[in-house]
Amino acid sequence: MKPKVLIIMGSDSDLPVMENTSKLLKEFKIPYKMTVASAHRTPDRTVKLAMEAEAEGVQVIIAGAGSAAHLAGVIAAHTTLPVIGVPIDSSPLKGVDALYSTVQMPPGIPVATMAVGNAGAKNAAIFAAQILQFGNPALTGKLKVYKKKMAREVLEKAKKVEKK
Amino acid sequence: MKPKVLIIMGSDSDLPVMENTSKLLKEFKIPYKMTVASAHRTPDRTVKLAMEAEAEGVQVIIAGAGSAAHLAGVIAAHTTLPVIGVPIDSSPLKGVDALYSTVQMPPGIPVATMAVGNAGAKNAAIFAAQILQFGNPALTGKLKVYKKKMAREVLEKAKKVEKK
Amino acid sequence: MKPKVLIIMGSDSDLPVMENTSKLLKEFKIPYKMTVASAHRTPDRTVKLAMEAEAEGVQVIIAGAGSAAHLAGVIAAHTTLPVIGVPIDSSPLKGVDALYSTVQMPPGIPVATMAVGNAGAKNAAIFAAQILQFGNPALTGKLKVYKKKMAREVLEKAKKVEKK
Amino acid sequence: MKPKVLIIMGSDSDLPVMENTSKLLKEFKIPYKMTVASAHRTPDRTVKLAMEAEAEGVQVIIAGAGSAAHLAGVIAAHTTLPVIGVPIDSSPLKGVDALYSTVQMPPGIPVATMAVGNAGAKNAAIFAAQILQFGNPALTGKLKVYKKKMAREVLEKAKKVEKK
Amino acid sequence: MKPKVLIIMGSDSDLPVMENTSKLLKEFKIPYKMTVASAHRTPDRTVKLAMEAEAEGVQVIIAGAGSAAHLAGVIAAHTTLPVIGVPIDSSPLKGVDALYSTVQMPPGIPVATMAVGNAGAKNAAIFAAQILQFGNPALTGKLKVYKKKMAREVLEKAKKVEKK
Amino acid sequence: MKPKVLIIMGSDSDLPVMENTSKLLKEFKIPYKMTVASAHRTPDRTVKLAMEAEAEGVQVIIAGAGSAAHLAGVIAAHTTLPVIGVPIDSSPLKGVDALYSTVQMPPGIPVATMAVGNAGAKNAAIFAAQILQFGNPALTGKLKVYKKKMAREVLEKAKKVEKK
Amino acid sequence: MKPKVLIIMGSDSDLPVMENTSKLLKEFKIPYKMTVASAHRTPDRTVKLAMEAEAEGVQVIIAGAGSAAHLAGVIAAHTTLPVIGVPIDSSPLKGVDALYSTVQMPPGIPVATMAVGNAGAKNAAIFAAQILQFGNPALTGKLKVYKKKMAREVLEKAKKVEKK
Amino acid sequence: MKPKVLIIMGSDSDLPVMENTSKLLKEFKIPYKMTVASAHRTPDRTVKLAMEAEAEGVQVIIAGAGSAAHLAGVIAAHTTLPVIGVPIDSSPLKGVDALYSTVQMPPGIPVATMAVGNAGAKNAAIFAAQILQFGNPALTGKLKVYKKKMAREVLEKAKKVEKK
Repeated sequence: MKPKVLIIMGSDSDLPVMENTSKLLKEFKIPYKMTVASAHRTPDRTVKLAMEAEAEGVQVIIAGAGSAAHLAGVIAAHTTLPVIGVPIDSSPLKGVDALYSTVQMPPGIPVATMAVGNAGAKNAAIFAAQILQFGNPALTGKLKVYKKKMAREVLEKAKKVEKK
Repeated sequence: MKPKVLIIMGSDSDLPVMENTSKLLKEFKIPYKMTVASAHRTPDRTVKLAMEAEAEGVQVIIAGAGSAAHLAGVIAAHTTLPVIGVPIDSSPLKGVDALYSTVQMPPGIPVATMAVGNAGAKNAAIFAAQILQFGNPALTGKLKVYKKKMAREVLEKAKKVEKK
Repeated sequence: MKPKVLIIMGSDSDLPVMENTSKLLKEFKIPYKMTVASAHRTPDRTVKLAMEAEAEGVQVIIAGAGSAAHLAGVIAAHTTLPVIGVPIDSSPLKGVDALYSTVQMPPGIPVATMAVGNAGAKNAAIFAAQILQFGNPALTGKLKVYKKKMAREVLEKAKKVEKK
Repeated sequence: MKPKVLIIMGSDSDLPVMENTSKLLKEFKIPYKMTVASAHRTPDRTVKLAMEAEAEGVQVIIAGAGSAAHLAGVIAAHTTLPVIGVPIDSSPLKGVDALYSTVQMPPGIPVATMAVGNAGAKNAAIFAAQILQFGNPALTGKLKVYKKKMAREVLEKAKKVEKK
Repeated sequence: MKPKVLIIMGSDSDLPVMENTSKLLKEFKIPYKMTVASAHRTPDRTVKLAMEAEAEGVQVIIAGAGSAAHLAGVIAAHTTLPVIGVPIDSSPLKGVDALYSTVQMPPGIPVATMAVGNAGAKNAAIFAAQILQFGNPALTGKLKVYKKKMAREVLEKAKKVEKK
Repeated sequence: MKPKVLIIMGSDSDLPVMENTSKLLKEFKIPYKMTVASAHRTPDRTVKLAMEAEAEGVQVIIAGAGSAAHLAGVIAAHTTLPVIGVPIDSSPLKGVDALYSTVQMPPGIPVATMAVGNAGAKNAAIFAAQILQFGNPALTGKLKVYKKKMAREVLEKAKKVEKK
Repeated sequence: MKPKVLIIMGSDSDLPVMENTSKLLKEFKIPYKMTVASAHRTPDRTVKLAMEAEAEGVQVIIAGAGSAAHLAGVIAAHTTLPVIGVPIDSSPLKGVDALYSTVQMPPGIPVATMAVGNAGAKNAAIFAAQILQFGNPALTGKLKVYKKKMAREVLEKAKKVEKK
Repeated sequence: MKPKVLIIMGSDSDLPVMENTSKLLKEFKIPYKMTVASAHRTPDRTVKLAMEAEAEGVQVIIAGAGSAAHLAGVIAAHTTLPVIGVPIDSSPLKGVDALYSTVQMPPGIPVATMAVGNAGAKNAAIFAAQILQFGNPALTGKLKVYKKKMAREVLEKAKKVEKK
């Protein structure tokens, strides 16, 4: 099946974080493609991926990067598909640099920024599903089931904590 | 026409910022409803707006708030619709508080966070259009035209600056 | 005995921090109930806990959470009981996100914010005791004894350091 | 009537901020005394105010200060009454210094910290009322009325914004 | 004469800052071209400017931008010419966002980052002259004269202050 | 009379801040010399001032500077006299840059850092007096009188605030 | 011999940092006393130590503390002796809280603030020696010898690095 | 062969970071000299190195330092050669102090600042090569080859990630 989501990370060292995204997309049965492209070291590849995505049927692009994280912004500059950014805490500044570089986009070119690190990578998958649900009621159903499952898990944890 | 986008702001003092969103949605001819609801002062109203949105045909919710900006997160907790957050720089901490409160969502409940202030409010409208474009090729067209118009405007400004 | 203090944490991973609170309440012989509720994953449960607390005889609610820590604020929105917030340093931003999300409450809905992490969790218990002491002179006595004990401990440490 | 709340500010230049507190206490008909005492310039006076408060019938102390805001902490060191701290944005660091100096109290001596500036000053009054309500059902009533009034005001503003 | 320095700013609103650069280059008699190109709104133009610069005889590129300032990084990705970045304080975050976005480049693609705002814009011109001085002893001479002039100005100011 | 305190500021634009220092030294009748020297634009002059100070009878050096405020550190590198640093909020980063540049000295070369801006400039004068008081009991007396005067002024302000 | 320097730390857990101070004072043969006193847990002891120091012949007080580090400021409030503050990075905020709480003193009550952590603790000892050197030429000599020794050590390290 | 690049680090503890610079210069076959000089502990040596560099044929100086990193600025004050600064994260403030101290140079004396830590140290070497390439077409060639090699490496990593 053709990928609906394209996950791009700035470096293969970002893989442990971005696998949070791919695992959850798999759980939602959303076809995706995951690759590496650097806004700075392979700018042409990054632009090409961004420009061809729409024609290839991709509907959402998720970009994860650290430091001066330009990846999501550069991709957003070359597409009108929704781009989700995941700032990664891989530099000595602990992700504040990646957060500001990802979220503070100028008017005209939005990047939907998630939390720094693993939490953000998971949420990128869920947000992609929330975008893709329109015209796909099964996916809406899965999102609602997932939400209920989370609630149930919290309740179970609550019981354990209450027993202590 | 029924609103596809619901804009909620935490206080009417956020209106000058959030009008950046409504103006752009109007330009894109996307029907929207704009209102005020506080996560803290009218929590029930906020929850009600969030829970009823889907049934009313809303597809994207945009929430703008300052200080400990819980609004977008609280809404996202009560819906599986995509929620876009706009942090507003209305406290002495100049929007860093609103940014962290909006973007640092825990795994499970994403908020697509935009830049602090006016830039973010504009981008919220564009990002909503990017979500709504699927099954609406006219909107995709408008997004591409808008992107070209922005590019043209930069070129005109470039010429003026070059002449100096 | 009916709990006078309700301790809520956003996730069971916050337990090692929030046990600082429960241990101290136990030491003060203040009956408490400790549970887990997420402002985002179990919003209804959170609201229910907040709304029923007063009728159940709870007089103080203590909420500990990390990241975009909305828990204390959401609880405060649904009760007129005093709410104490403990920001937890569980995200890559090391608790600054939780601190700003907890303390920067808008006018009308206060959250009494404690220090980030363990220190704040201990102080939440003491502050709860300081609230509960009115009409309970024994508790005032305990607080004064506790204060003296702390002073004595510092003196003993001072002696050890002076001997070196 | 004897003051139940003692408002202390570090400098008379903090008065415009701290009047948010006194006005709201007046609205709640809570008797208060408001004065100036500097933790650094009049330490003895500060200590004396803190130590005598309990005997004089004060039940809550509210301390507002800017810069290295030690006032609330110094007061809390000398009393077992609940102390509420209001960080004020009066230095070039815009209140982050006052916030950290007020909230990061070591274990043993809590300061219930409110938001930076005017919002925090208002909330200090409400939080004081929330503490004082026990044994004073009229005050609980006023708090609930106040909460409803805030909600109503938001609704009115919502209507105005919706009409635009 | 063909430009040796290419000044690019992300928006014409950055002109008042970047004129600090052009004025100083003029003073050093270094031929330059100044234009506007946005990494996000005109990515192709930005890439084209970066890629053609070397062939056109440009030896240094100076890029000034605010918010998530990707401009200098995107240019550096497409050239092996030295790229100087000037972070501009045009967003509510007051230039910290632009600074982190400009300076925190990943290994492989350097951006020589100057101070935030006017000071950085002036220094970009001087640093460009320092690069261009090799094989141009007259420019080295000008740099030394400029340095002496600055020192003389400080001495004159010192005398005025000493007289007070 | 020979100056005991040497006040150096990095730029004459720092004069409004550093006059807080000179006025207070005058009030304490401590002879001083005030001048301008830039660690970057007149490094030789700065070093010369630092190295000759001791032989000329100077006992304390006060250095005020903004941005990457190296002035106090450079002076401290060239003398064993006590050096007091005043960080000035003259850049877009509002003094945090000057604070970190002044206070974070490596082991071996201390700079006694005061608060950012006017408060720090005043305190630099008082701290200089505290250093110079040894062998000068009159100065100790003045410091105690000054402290009492401050306390009295707070009391007067307290009365005014209490009357309201 | 009577102590000329009084070292106070807020907690015995600060000892590993503050031993940097005592070791260096020993090296300079400056008699000192080192003890523990908390501004918050033993305020009376802290005030007493501050008030009696002068009469006991102490000439410099060094205070090291973490979190909301009020210790140095509280001591400075009760003495006209010079007070040196060492901010300690013992909380989740990594010393920024202690730095702001120590350095941002209001006008009138200076605290000579050193760098965060070990570097600052060492420099506190050197700065104390710089204060105490007046009327003690032997100490001036030691400071100059120490400065030369540091320079020699750097030269030796330079040789090692150059050989690589 | 005479060194074209002079690498100076503030302490031998900075060597693991600055070896990233020397290794890359070796790879580019650019002759360099690497040594240690402290702006604070060996100011004369630092100034001498800066002043003699030009006459000895050095064309670029790279300075790496942590904490209040004055090294690059002090060197830049004494030369008109281009100076590249590498902020090092060796203090409890994790490199933000070194970044601000290096980048926020006042107008007149630029320091070309790289990213904090290892990334910045590598980029300093590349940026030096970008400066030295003029009149050295072989070096331009190497820079282009290096850029291609980086791109190739990213592609290989992309393939590995895609296979997963």
